[in-house]
Amino acid sequence: MQEKHKQQPVDAVKLDRLAQIAVKTGLGLQKGQNIVVTAPVEALPLLRRIACHAYRAGANLFTPLLADEELTLLRLREAPETSFDHAAGWLYQGMAAAYAQGAARLAIVGENPMLLANEDAGKVARLNKATSLAYKPALEKISNFDINWNIIAYPGLAWARLVFPNLAENEAVYRLAEAIFAASRADREDPLAAWAEHNAALRRRSDWLDTENFAALHFKGKGTDLQIGLAEGHKWSGGASQAKNGIICNPNIPTEEVFTTPHAYKVEGIVQSTKPLAHHGSLIENICVRFKGGQIIEAKAGKGEAVFNRILESDAGARRLGEVALVPHSSPISASGLLFYNTLFDENAACHIALGQCYSKCLKGGAHLSKEEIAARGGNSSLVHVDWMIGGGDTDIDGIKQDGSLVPVFRKGEWVSA
Amino acid sequence: MQEKHKQQPVDAVKLDRLAQIAVKTGLGLQKGQNIVVTAPVEALPLLRRIACHAYRAGANLFTPLLADEELTLLRLREAPETSFDHAAGWLYQGMAAAYAQGAARLAIVGENPMLLANEDAGKVARLNKATSLAYKPALEKISNFDINWNIIAYPGLAWARLVFPNLAENEAVYRLAEAIFAASRADREDPLAAWAEHNAALRRRSDWLDTENFAALHFKGKGTDLQIGLAEGHKWSGGASQAKNGIICNPNIPTEEVFTTPHAYKVEGIVQSTKPLAHHGSLIENICVRFKGGQIIEAKAGKGEAVFNRILESDAGARRLGEVALVPHSSPISASGLLFYNTLFDENAACHIALGQCYSKCLKGGAHLSKEEIAARGGNSSLVHVDWMIGGGDTDIDGIKQDGSLVPVFRKGEWVSA
Repeated sequence: MQEKHKQQPVDAVKLDRLAQIAVKTGLGLQKGQNIVVTAPVEALPLLRRIACHAYRAGANLFTPLLADEELTLLRLREAPETSFDHAAGWLYQGMAAAYAQGAARLAIVGENPMLLANEDAGKVARLNKATSLAYKPALEKISNFDINWNIIAYPGLAWARLVFPNLAENEAVYRLAEAIFAASRADREDPLAAWAEHNAALRRRSDWLDTENFAALHFKGKGTDLQIGLAEGHKWSGGASQAKNGIICNPNIPTEEVFTTPHAYKVEGIVQSTKPLAHHGSLIENICVRFKGGQIIEAKAGKGEAVFNRILESDAGARRLGEVALVPHSSPISASGLLFYNTLFDENAACHIALGQCYSKCLKGGAHLSKEEIAARGGNSSLVHVDWMIGGGDTDIDGIKQDGSLVPVFRKGEWVSA
Repeated sequence: MQEKHKQQPVDAVKLDRLAQIAVKTGLGLQKGQNIVVTAPVEALPLLRRIACHAYRAGANLFTPLLADEELTLLRLREAPETSFDHAAGWLYQGMAAAYAQGAARLAIVGENPMLLANEDAGKVARLNKATSLAYKPALEKISNFDINWNIIAYPGLAWARLVFPNLAENEAVYRLAEAIFAASRADREDPLAAWAEHNAALRRRSDWLDTENFAALHFKGKGTDLQIGLAEGHKWSGGASQAKNGIICNPNIPTEEVFTTPHAYKVEGIVQSTKPLAHHGSLIENICVRFKGGQIIEAKAGKGEAVFNRILESDAGARRLGEVALVPHSSPISASGLLFYNTLFDENAACHIALGQCYSKCLKGGAHLSKEEIAARGGNSSLVHVDWMIGGGDTDIDGIKQDGSLVPVFRKGEWVSA
């Protein structure tokens, strides 16, 4: 490998800690378990450290599926028209089979968030839809939390240049790496202990929200006056949780949110985005939508409106909510002041909502509910799941109890109770 | 990709021609066809050019499966004992499904031939066996020639250093690239025309051999006195041929051989290897074996004997022949004087035989024969197919006709007839 001879502008000790976090805290990998990993080629230095920690933790098979962004661009620019409505179904079905047989799922992200910004939006949308459709059986095993899974980030060069446009390449990669390490607690001497402590704090929040058992949340802020009904028998999640295979894992590294399933038909009012949304290589800014009966009936965006409308047109569920998440304005990622152009990070800087597919684990007894039962409780279903940020320093949230009484939850972007 | 900013010590024009050869001559890719490609990460510059030519030729889906040698080493060194008897069956089954649905198969090779030389031979053998077993359904579609397929090479750094141990890294890669380009006819102004001409020459050889319809070939040379019975209704192949899906392709780039299926039970005598055999990262030299009733009953090797014995112990068919191939000593690859440590090249420098699985396409009506019918004709069956070189400048070959009369085929390593 020629890469071996190239100095990576990334702290090797912290990179190794990040790999350890992915395997131990992220996946909670079990001895003898198989792992399927997707990663951009550029993330090989992290992938190799993860493989090492995974094998040492007793991983049986470690199967990498490496992606190259240049090949994606070549497809969009050179492939015949017929290509864009197809996907390699055999590969996605295989992944679903691997998960059904007990494999864990790890995704390393680090791609150029703007890769597709100048490509044909129609082709991109068709390609994404065909891929989503092929991927659905595998994605359902993840969104239903059948297996332990984890997403973690590596500082790719194009991503680093986007976040730090005024720095030299090596400096930008170094700075993004440090930001990833800090947000992922890989800068701590004992990162696993730091994660145990953080998970306990998130658990206290979600336990309190479960005890309150709100019927709805009312968000108020600049340009936002939105009431979000919560699904019947909803349950709050955050940090570590137990997959249906019994394994406790942290699906997202980093994570600062507690979140639950809204009622797909009980969302009313207007809401405005507070941070840009980087979606499949396009940037969508200043989203402003109106909900009625849970459905988006008006949508505007200051930038990327066509892309946003394409998301809404993906299927019937794309106009309804699948997630609502609470993140204090003082979260470390928000405090970093950086815009990461990546939902994994940016969603942990602010309260957010997601259009599309809900998480069944955010319903009591969700592990054993049929699709019909989930829908009956208000859980949304869709091929997409797109998070966007609606919280900021001026966000107030009230919880509306089942008897209609109000409980202050957030004031000026921060938790009211401890 | 950081690679973009690194000067590749490889001629870009010839690399692009090699990609064109892979798509047009190698695969004979059809409009609307899908392709599955395996490649080492290092071969991305060639993979991208191939994707471009494939899409322009009308490829529908181009699915790359990228491998990283460091991950292979990490597995051998860090994975638990239980790992080595398993393989990602879902991935190999998926590949078989893709081929069954009409996808073409492209393999880019360029790995370090000595990667596994210092690893635990027992683990390597178990890993190879588990992988072969999982891969068998997919491999059978290739060895049965159900689909169009092609193998082509990229000059990886570790490979280049092995072939040119006394040159600086960039110089070694450049020289190996030039050797690959020359052997693959990517150094010609019109490479597709050059391949058409070469394929016609190979066709004349195989047509003559088919007309002669020899019962056996008798090889004589230094340390070799071997009679190889040919399968009943055998057929000679070489260069371009038609897969069962009707597509004409060149499975190997480069290729200088004509080859057929021996009779698995009619091989008698002794034979000595004339070039080293690089097998799964180990080097096997000076092989000397005795056949009786088609089976190897004595085997020695000057170097790598344990690895060679492990091949023989793979299964019952590993001790019998699946292929015999004729290559003149004056072939361009032989004339280059290089040892490539890679069968794709080295087998085209000399007459060779292969232990293990036969090609059903080298039997008349082979496309429609059952496994039992292939066996009844003398076609061998095995999980392995391992070529090794037995020809040189002193090789004489006689064809033995069905009536027992002799026809000179090779004298002093060269074809006797035109």
